[in-house]
Amino acid sequence: MEKIKVAVLGATGMVGQYFLHLLNDHPCFQVVAVCASDARIAQPLGEVKSLHPAGIPEDMAHLALMGLDAGTLAGAGVQIVFSGLPADIARGIEMELAQRGIHVFSNASAWRMDPLVPILIPEINSAHLALVQQQLQQRRGFIITNANCTTTGLALSLLPLLPLGIRRLIIASYQAVSGAGYPGIPALDISGNIIPFIDGEEPKVRKECGKIFARIGASGLEPAEWQVHAHCIRVPTLVGHLVSTHVELAEAVTLEKITALFRDFEMPADVAGLPTAPAKPILMASEKNRPQPVRDADAGGPGRTAGMAVTVGRLEVDGNIVRFVNLANNLVRGAAGGSVLNAELCLRVGLIKGGAI
Amino acid sequence: MEKIKVAVLGATGMVGQYFLHLLNDHPCFQVVAVCASDARIAQPLGEVKSLHPAGIPEDMAHLALMGLDAGTLAGAGVQIVFSGLPADIARGIEMELAQRGIHVFSNASAWRMDPLVPILIPEINSAHLALVQQQLQQRRGFIITNANCTTTGLALSLLPLLPLGIRRLIIASYQAVSGAGYPGIPALDISGNIIPFIDGEEPKVRKECGKIFARIGASGLEPAEWQVHAHCIRVPTLVGHLVSTHVELAEAVTLEKITALFRDFEMPADVAGLPTAPAKPILMASEKNRPQPVRDADAGGPGRTAGMAVTVGRLEVDGNIVRFVNLANNLVRGAAGGSVLNAELCLRVGLIKGGAI
Amino acid sequence: MEKIKVAVLGATGMVGQYFLHLLNDHPCFQVVAVCASDARIAQPLGEVKSLHPAGIPEDMAHLALMGLDAGTLAGAGVQIVFSGLPADIARGIEMELAQRGIHVFSNASAWRMDPLVPILIPEINSAHLALVQQQLQQRRGFIITNANCTTTGLALSLLPLLPLGIRRLIIASYQAVSGAGYPGIPALDISGNIIPFIDGEEPKVRKECGKIFARIGASGLEPAEWQVHAHCIRVPTLVGHLVSTHVELAEAVTLEKITALFRDFEMPADVAGLPTAPAKPILMASEKNRPQPVRDADAGGPGRTAGMAVTVGRLEVDGNIVRFVNLANNLVRGAAGGSVLNAELCLRVGLIKGGAI
Amino acid sequence: MEKIKVAVLGATGMVGQYFLHLLNDHPCFQVVAVCASDARIAQPLGEVKSLHPAGIPEDMAHLALMGLDAGTLAGAGVQIVFSGLPADIARGIEMELAQRGIHVFSNASAWRMDPLVPILIPEINSAHLALVQQQLQQRRGFIITNANCTTTGLALSLLPLLPLGIRRLIIASYQAVSGAGYPGIPALDISGNIIPFIDGEEPKVRKECGKIFARIGASGLEPAEWQVHAHCIRVPTLVGHLVSTHVELAEAVTLEKITALFRDFEMPADVAGLPTAPAKPILMASEKNRPQPVRDADAGGPGRTAGMAVTVGRLEVDGNIVRFVNLANNLVRGAAGGSVLNAELCLRVGLIKGGAI
Repeated sequence: MEKIKVAVLGATGMVGQYFLHLLNDHPCFQVVAVCASDARIAQPLGEVKSLHPAGIPEDMAHLALMGLDAGTLAGAGVQIVFSGLPADIARGIEMELAQRGIHVFSNASAWRMDPLVPILIPEINSAHLALVQQQLQQRRGFIITNANCTTTGLALSLLPLLPLGIRRLIIASYQAVSGAGYPGIPALDISGNIIPFIDGEEPKVRKECGKIFARIGASGLEPAEWQVHAHCIRVPTLVGHLVSTHVELAEAVTLEKITALFRDFEMPADVAGLPTAPAKPILMASEKNRPQPVRDADAGGPGRTAGMAVTVGRLEVDGNIVRFVNLANNLVRGAAGGSVLNAELCLRVGLIKGGAI
Repeated sequence: MEKIKVAVLGATGMVGQYFLHLLNDHPCFQVVAVCASDARIAQPLGEVKSLHPAGIPEDMAHLALMGLDAGTLAGAGVQIVFSGLPADIARGIEMELAQRGIHVFSNASAWRMDPLVPILIPEINSAHLALVQQQLQQRRGFIITNANCTTTGLALSLLPLLPLGIRRLIIASYQAVSGAGYPGIPALDISGNIIPFIDGEEPKVRKECGKIFARIGASGLEPAEWQVHAHCIRVPTLVGHLVSTHVELAEAVTLEKITALFRDFEMPADVAGLPTAPAKPILMASEKNRPQPVRDADAGGPGRTAGMAVTVGRLEVDGNIVRFVNLANNLVRGAAGGSVLNAELCLRVGLIKGGAI
Repeated sequence: MEKIKVAVLGATGMVGQYFLHLLNDHPCFQVVAVCASDARIAQPLGEVKSLHPAGIPEDMAHLALMGLDAGTLAGAGVQIVFSGLPADIARGIEMELAQRGIHVFSNASAWRMDPLVPILIPEINSAHLALVQQQLQQRRGFIITNANCTTTGLALSLLPLLPLGIRRLIIASYQAVSGAGYPGIPALDISGNIIPFIDGEEPKVRKECGKIFARIGASGLEPAEWQVHAHCIRVPTLVGHLVSTHVELAEAVTLEKITALFRDFEMPADVAGLPTAPAKPILMASEKNRPQPVRDADAGGPGRTAGMAVTVGRLEVDGNIVRFVNLANNLVRGAAGGSVLNAELCLRVGLIKGGAI
Repeated sequence: MEKIKVAVLGATGMVGQYFLHLLNDHPCFQVVAVCASDARIAQPLGEVKSLHPAGIPEDMAHLALMGLDAGTLAGAGVQIVFSGLPADIARGIEMELAQRGIHVFSNASAWRMDPLVPILIPEINSAHLALVQQQLQQRRGFIITNANCTTTGLALSLLPLLPLGIRRLIIASYQAVSGAGYPGIPALDISGNIIPFIDGEEPKVRKECGKIFARIGASGLEPAEWQVHAHCIRVPTLVGHLVSTHVELAEAVTLEKITALFRDFEMPADVAGLPTAPAKPILMASEKNRPQPVRDADAGGPGRTAGMAVTVGRLEVDGNIVRFVNLANNLVRGAAGGSVLNAELCLRVGLIKGGAI
């Protein structure tokens, strides 16, 4: 069967290049267009500075960069775009594409808090795809976002606790420099140093957590009413956001029970088997001094699903309090991989035409 | 007036060498003996590998290393020892020295939880010196410890909040590699990495916080009954432990009030003016992305008091919750400098004979 | 056909664990024994601290560590040992094993300068296997060493220039911390720092270059009489030794000629196709700011041959001077992988019984 | 006596801020104007992001940034400017200032190779001030440059060998990230990595070495005709450029002689005692694994002369070859401090009016 034609927006950036790799040889999607800022139009993708350890995928090196023009993409038969654009640029073009009937899977924060746009993490809230139906009553295409890179790993690690009634979260993050994109953070600022502030990050974590775990009510999403206290802090690591996580539940639990919940947590059936879905979304660290960014950022692999699982360690229980650290790959699960998985889910449930998956 | 003769135990280690520097040209103390493990006996201190940025103090380079022998130190007229020994070695020798009438100011954890040994932070609990009187009924000398390097900065930063009734602490630390001494952590383990576990550290923070803020009751110290939840985590920085701090108070407060409490917090009169006491024990960071280890670890200086102040940043209030990050120099305020300040206080209050200060 | 039974000596160390990975699923060799220091005897390999990014190979995790006992290894039917032992320990046991008829492929420096022991780099000096025949007249087994980790990459990168008559080398190395093994270099010494001295390294580079490129004369190897001036310097990188290389040839050359020599350099026929042999031993960097350790240390792959090729960049010619930088994986090509390739070559040429390769 | 009024151009950049610190409380110079790009005009200097460990000097915090306007500076009575401008911007304004009679001491490379502009290193070539007289026949002010940050330390370390006849240099540098200014090199590019190419650096080292050691002939400078082969390589250190240096002399020497030349090398009388001149321009490392950037970058201090001395280590001799490593502070001696020393020399020799020094 023919693959679905897709484009990557912001293809020269860090997240854009991770999209390229996750879409390379993808069983369902074929990258036919790569878009960047006007200054780069016509440059072959292969000449762009590589920001992925494996370089620009060879099969895409010949693609010439295009501008961000919805008409041209529509003309080229593009059905889906994956967007790694900065938020300010994303806002206009993503909506324009959706209006033309091109479905947008975006890592940008521009539309995340829009009432009709889900922040989709398939294992958590595939029910939020109902919002997409509402979008399709207004326009021919839809926008689906993945969560912020810190929120994603945190949210996944909370999933086994959801039935127990989460009341409050207190977190401190240890975020890698790749979270700021490229060129991002100067070596002079972060070498051997910590920067205890990341502009806009803490409100994102708080609001996105509420929306991701929202229930669908009569008049739209009803955000989870958890208290969320976050310190988002930059540390001198390259890839992998670690989060010290303190959760308060509705009632007391035992370590045995919580351990079993994490250990036995399985990939939901509607997600299992998707090309980018890891065998298990949550892994338990084997050693008490894990997870570590250098060793665990690629958990979930090998191959296409490397970096798609979250690793949880140091699980402790004290009454109604559950504490642990979690680690997620901020570029894969927390960015490009999240949106690719979202697109695969949409294909499976028929929101995208083009065949079984 | 003649200076008091002191010795440094563990003089070749990281904390030991910081003791040497803080005692160099000290107005009250004169280092007359330096002790290390037997293998090094008779080696001149100047031949030891330097672990302090300024090298071994020139005036001490000629001192020959001695073994850990209480009799010899007593014979040399030593009145005080500063101990940077590992806990297991410290336990025996420190008590033996006290029994011989030599006062021990120790960075080791060996005696910290002993009911008669204070964990002294002068700004917080100089009243605990009452315990020393009880020690002196049992033996001719006394032992006073400084707190663990992470606890010290945390405890100081909580001091302005004390009158408001602290109920609970939830912290996550960002601890520098120097906290593990030398050789300490292999570059292969920590370069670009995070290790989310430090053996024994979290219980220390919990127990020491309780003891430092204890009230003196009829039958001894009554530990503060705060809940303390800590994640102690190693990051690739060299000096300066940063702590994400979440405090729950007895009742709601305002940001204005809390800001004023921190801003206006003054050095207590019984500590002010001691040679190693900074002008203010707590400084407020001037920028929202501070404190940072590279820029703020030496706060409190210049000169002898550099690294003796704690820096607090990102102050936030939400009802009864106060949140901030704090940074303290783990080698100065959190180790050697803490014990030197303790000795100065004891001199001032007359627990050590030898003159006014 | 049945695989040849092999053992890994020093299996818990850094190089030892790289041996395990390179021998895992090897088409010719089967690891049946793993040896370490006496303190670890009987410990399952799976419980050892992992020093390889991929952890201990699952299929070997059940193996119990054995002591360094030649008799036991012989009794277990071991035909080959791969040695990642420290030099002082290697000296005795490696010779004892050879005397018992077990062939030794060693990364240790203990026997490298022995007149009958080749420092074998298959692409360069497979003719030196003649020495092995002489060894076999003295004992039932033989010892073959790989070169020092810095020498290996340097020597390979010089190979295309060999026909032009090398007269003199002036090099400066940028050596990764993994070259010092584990625990190796403390983070406190090397973070953000350079250490311009590595004990014993510069004489090794000089002597080993001479021996590797030696001609076989009537009375044994006649070392290449090149002048070699080396500065061996440690930098804060993890894997991959880079070498600034300045070569003086017998006569003037052109950049075109030298570029062609490097570009067209092919794997010699007697090595090509061995399981651990990369397609080409020398790769040319694609960009002027390459090779870089982070990006190029695994050159030669994917799979079993990753890290087996040397990358050369910044090629320049000025009269009889050729200048470039080269990068080799110090743990793979410069250590474990070098010895595995040596064993494969010996199997192919019939020095080891056991089948075609 | 009144101080000479000076301005700093490019005052918000890395080198500009080092100028501010070196000129703070300077006995001869008073900073009365600070200039930056037009976008910053009128911003108080105190609001600029600090790029120096000690922050913006308090006494200058109130100064409002000015544009690069020669007329305004002349009107403000500025006699000297110190320029930390980028080369392309420096070219026009520096000449314009000189034409108006304002003397320019520049770290920019723009005018370094101009036949009438000296690359001045006072200990080496104060005789080149003769060129300044020629400049003053053409315009009312003059331009004097300091050398490139890598060249400076290298040139100083060669000075004791000068009488022996230098024929050839082969060097490999280990350059800190601060050499690229701020924001400079992204953490993502250099963390745990090496970049073996720095655009334009190697030709600068070669040409500047020739000019610095030039003799003054009938028709101007006659560059030293040394062969210079350089690999300029970026490593993950923050401050301090280390250089592996290989020197070929006219004839064979002994280690004793060379050691004595370095050890006994004194500050030339015409430079000794200048406020920014260290006691000795060249220090010998005390240990075989020194100099190291973290420990030795501030050599020459304390106080105003910290970072003004070069440290030489690992001295070796082999026939006519002398080998060593040297380390210089690229921001102080190799940039701002170099030009401040140049200005002090000009004041002493009367090229600048304003009083004795």
